[in-house]
Amino acid sequence: MSADTSRPATPEDLKASEAVSPSSKLARFPAEEPLELDAGVKLGPWQIAYETYGELNADKSNAVIVCHALTGDQYVASTNPVTGKPGWWSQMVGPGKPVDTNHYFVICSNVLGGCLGTTGPASINPETGQPYGLALPVITIRDMVRAQARLVDHLGIDTLFAVIGGSMGGMQVLQWAASYPERVFSAVPIAAAARHTSQNIAFHEVGRQAIMADPNWCAGSYLQEGQRPTKGLAVARMAAHVTYMSDESLHQKFGRNLQDRDNVTFGFDADFQIESYLRHQGMTFVDRFDANSYLYVTRAMDYFDLAHQFGGSLANAFKGTKTRFCVMSFTSDWLFPTSESRRVVKALNAAAANVSFVEIESDRGHDSFLLDVPEMFQTISGFVTGAAHARGLPAPGEEA
Amino acid sequence: MSADTSRPATPEDLKASEAVSPSSKLARFPAEEPLELDAGVKLGPWQIAYETYGELNADKSNAVIVCHALTGDQYVASTNPVTGKPGWWSQMVGPGKPVDTNHYFVICSNVLGGCLGTTGPASINPETGQPYGLALPVITIRDMVRAQARLVDHLGIDTLFAVIGGSMGGMQVLQWAASYPERVFSAVPIAAAARHTSQNIAFHEVGRQAIMADPNWCAGSYLQEGQRPTKGLAVARMAAHVTYMSDESLHQKFGRNLQDRDNVTFGFDADFQIESYLRHQGMTFVDRFDANSYLYVTRAMDYFDLAHQFGGSLANAFKGTKTRFCVMSFTSDWLFPTSESRRVVKALNAAAANVSFVEIESDRGHDSFLLDVPEMFQTISGFVTGAAHARGLPAPGEEA
Repeated sequence: MSADTSRPATPEDLKASEAVSPSSKLARFPAEEPLELDAGVKLGPWQIAYETYGELNADKSNAVIVCHALTGDQYVASTNPVTGKPGWWSQMVGPGKPVDTNHYFVICSNVLGGCLGTTGPASINPETGQPYGLALPVITIRDMVRAQARLVDHLGIDTLFAVIGGSMGGMQVLQWAASYPERVFSAVPIAAAARHTSQNIAFHEVGRQAIMADPNWCAGSYLQEGQRPTKGLAVARMAAHVTYMSDESLHQKFGRNLQDRDNVTFGFDADFQIESYLRHQGMTFVDRFDANSYLYVTRAMDYFDLAHQFGGSLANAFKGTKTRFCVMSFTSDWLFPTSESRRVVKALNAAAANVSFVEIESDRGHDSFLLDVPEMFQTISGFVTGAAHARGLPAPGEEA
Repeated sequence: MSADTSRPATPEDLKASEAVSPSSKLARFPAEEPLELDAGVKLGPWQIAYETYGELNADKSNAVIVCHALTGDQYVASTNPVTGKPGWWSQMVGPGKPVDTNHYFVICSNVLGGCLGTTGPASINPETGQPYGLALPVITIRDMVRAQARLVDHLGIDTLFAVIGGSMGGMQVLQWAASYPERVFSAVPIAAAARHTSQNIAFHEVGRQAIMADPNWCAGSYLQEGQRPTKGLAVARMAAHVTYMSDESLHQKFGRNLQDRDNVTFGFDADFQIESYLRHQGMTFVDRFDANSYLYVTRAMDYFDLAHQFGGSLANAFKGTKTRFCVMSFTSDWLFPTSESRRVVKALNAAAANVSFVEIESDRGHDSFLLDVPEMFQTISGFVTGAAHARGLPAPGEEA
């Protein structure tokens, strides 16, 4: 782990932690323009870091928001400056891709509570001059979407042509459609759910307890103390990562294969490839993610229950909606199984919404939405093109 | 957590850690009668702690071994002196129960590597006079069964009427049948597998890393250091516990129900019942289980691959067997799914073994084997009675 945990944080560290993503665009909102949170408090000043791809057209009708998942970021289709890796959905978003940036203006912002430039627990608390830590109010999915709506306002855009996202990104898509139905022309929630289940909450709680069990977490004040709970965060990531893959994909990828050895060592080293893979996942994660952000963003997912916001009826969340929906799930996704997507579809049908639903055959588990699954690309490409026609936008293959 | 971690271990502690179960019978083997381990070393002196129920008949033909699971113990049908709780399978084993102690002589021993009286990492290393810690050789499922076979020798018993167990206990059952086919008249592996899958290993590795991430683990020497890695062990238990239940059972038992409150608190307390349930599971576990034992016993399961012992062919493991098998799985068990039991059955069929297979409808996940699942009791009762007839033993309902 490359993080230097041996010295107290300097003012430069703290400043850096507020905007670790110098390459991202920033929308800053002063204290007089706070964000009203579900927790019942006003957050301000606050900021949101975002990337854009393609050009906004003259009547501002071609804007697409891509919502990222738990540990995702705004670098959907460009190099992440922290990891140096290509955009996390560069197969989906870009010139000639299903979400074609030759035709659409794509916005992707770091979520509220995140750690790549948007206000989160590592940001400076104006009341103390120190990082918020646990003093940041708990964030919800609706708060994340409120922040995005403020960004869209800031960009002078009224209606979004599409809102697209997988996993927690799909939760945001559903929240967008429910909170701002008149601003969302089409919505694509992928591998998502309208609520976090008991099992989902359970796995998140394991991760949070792993972080909080690390003495370097310092009750959330590790930045001030010059510490980082890297071990706890790595364990949290490992536990989560197992849930993102299917039994079948783990079997195909690793099976019981040993790691650079002919026989087991009768010890506690990483004998099996799956062990070294998981350890690697844990170790690299801590270099790009903040432990407190992990607490906040998992909590936002746990709290998500769209039906609860609408008197217990999920159909009410979509009452009278004119948004066109494309709901997608994956056969081997046991974390956000097809049954949860069907629940959403059933509610959309009950609301007489325009909805198509595709369960995609894939043995790669929840992570399928991030992988090269041709049927997903084809489905989104087809849906987006159809929506463009309906919106009167030139679709890919046509002249603008 | 009630454990006193504030003082260095005393000689009394160390002695106590070797035999924390004064109520159990102990078979002690001197250094001259070591146990040969798969790791290629001889372990000695060593001991095995066990309980017995019922009476051994005159020709010693009515002995049954019950093999316990990962965190189980020898108190299958009597009060556990550490927790004060009833035997973990008292619905299965006892007078008038499916394994009827009015008719059978039931033996249940603490596994090698465990922490309730059998030699394990908390036992005294004769070379140092201190607890073994990580100096104990890594144990395998075959080693556990070797130790049990030595206990059976010690008791003067040649052939076991039945070997029964669930989960890791079922692995031991399969190993018994493969290693000592002539000594096992009937075998009942429940919710088990002939190998640990990549996903199984992955979850165990998360638990081990959680323990090892705890600074109080002290590289395995926490007993000598007067510490206990309770936080890491609790996280390990929580992560494992989620895998023992089905999504459906978690939904039914907890759903998204809140804990003693009307609304979420917008904080990181246990808002949801599932959270407080998991925290409770973690906290109570550390009072009854040793962290290093958790490492050793999970490792034994990971290493288990019965086919690998027999040239890659699982059928070879059972070649020529005369043992009668009853293989059982549960529909909602995603940790040891029915597909793994079918693999065992297929191999037994290929070996022309006498086998019956039952997949039991249950929505309670892997833990079903420990719960009140009437179909399981009926199946075992029927199978055991049939085996008793075949063995010429009086069955329940008949006079001995």
